[in-house]
Amino acid sequence: MTHTADCRSDRKGLVIVHTGDGKGKTTAALGLFLRAWGRDMRSGGIQFLKHENANYGEHRAIRRMGIELTPMGDGFTWTSRDIDETQDRAIHGWEIAKQKIADGQYDLFLLDEFTYPLHYGWLDTTTVLAWLRDNKPPMLHLVITGRYAPQALIDFADLVTEMKQIKHPWSDQGIKAQKGVEF
Amino acid sequence: MTHTADCRSDRKGLVIVHTGDGKGKTTAALGLFLRAWGRDMRSGGIQFLKHENANYGEHRAIRRMGIELTPMGDGFTWTSRDIDETQDRAIHGWEIAKQKIADGQYDLFLLDEFTYPLHYGWLDTTTVLAWLRDNKPPMLHLVITGRYAPQALIDFADLVTEMKQIKHPWSDQGIKAQKGVEF
Repeated sequence: MTHTADCRSDRKGLVIVHTGDGKGKTTAALGLFLRAWGRDMRSGGIQFLKHENANYGEHRAIRRMGIELTPMGDGFTWTSRDIDETQDRAIHGWEIAKQKIADGQYDLFLLDEFTYPLHYGWLDTTTVLAWLRDNKPPMLHLVITGRYAPQALIDFADLVTEMKQIKHPWSDQGIKAQKGVEF
Repeated sequence: MTHTADCRSDRKGLVIVHTGDGKGKTTAALGLFLRAWGRDMRSGGIQFLKHENANYGEHRAIRRMGIELTPMGDGFTWTSRDIDETQDRAIHGWEIAKQKIADGQYDLFLLDEFTYPLHYGWLDTTTVLAWLRDNKPPMLHLVITGRYAPQALIDFADLVTEMKQIKHPWSDQGIKAQKGVEF
C-alpha cells in the first residue's frame, strides 16, 4: 500500500498543533502514539528540547512499543547560556526530522516542542512550512507541540488545540512534579 | 509497599481534570497511561460515554499494555432518547469506579468523560466529591475528562487544563475523522 494510492478525498494526513501554557501538549501527543500503536500504525518523532540522554517514563514506554522518539535538545533550552549550541541542536534536529518525514516510513510523526525553535527564530518558520508543504507525505499525520505556536504555523495546521492552564499544583500549591504522571 | 507508607509530604496522588471544547482531553489521559506504563505503574479506568462494545485504537493499545479501561456508556449519551438508561449506566459506572478506586490496586485511574454525568445531574457532584475526599487512596492519581467540568470539581482538583479548540478540521474544513488519530 503506498501513501498515494490511499489518498482518498475524505482521508488526509493532518497537521496537528498542541500549543498553550497548560499541561497536556506532549502528553496528548503520546496519547496519539498509543492510539496509533493500537492500529498498528508506524510512529516516530523528534523531541527538540528534552535532553538527549533523557530516560523518562515516556521513553521507556515508547521503546517497549517499538516507537523511535529521538531527544535532540540540550535539556536547558531557552534559558541556556550557550544559545549557539541550542540553535545548532535545533537545526540538527530539524535536518534529521526532514529525512524521517520525507522518507515515508511513518504514519504519525511528532515534532515535540518544535514551536520554540520557530518562535525564537533558530529556524525560519516560512522556510520550514514551505518544506513541509512540498515534502510531507500526504497521508502522514504530523504533530507539533509547544508554547507560542507562530500564527503562520496555526494557519498551516489542520487541527490546533490550545492547552490552557486553569489550575496547576506546582505553581498553585507548591507540590513537586510527580514521577509517572509529569515525566 | 502500601500507599500510606509512601505518602511523603512532597508526593501525593493528583486529581487531574482535562476539560474544554477542544481535542486532546481523553488523548492526554491516554498519554498519562503511556507514561505510567513506562514506569510500571498500574493504570485502569472507566469510560462513561463510549459504547461498551467499542474497539477503537486506544482499546486495542490498552489491552496490549495490560491496562483495563472499561467502556460503560451507551454510546449516544446526552443526545440519547432514553435518558433513563443513560443515567442508569452512569450510576452503574460510578459504582464500579468506586470499587476500583477504593481497593487500592491502581496508581493511575481514569474517569473518562465523567464530567457529563456530573454536569447533567445524573450523579450528584457534591456526593461524588465527598466520596473521593474520603476514599481515594492518597497516592492514587485520578484523571477526569470531559467538557463542562463543574466548578466544584475544578476547586477539588489539583491540576486543571482546558483544551481549547483553536482550529478543527472536521468543523472548519469538512474533513472526516481519521482512523488511528481520532479514534
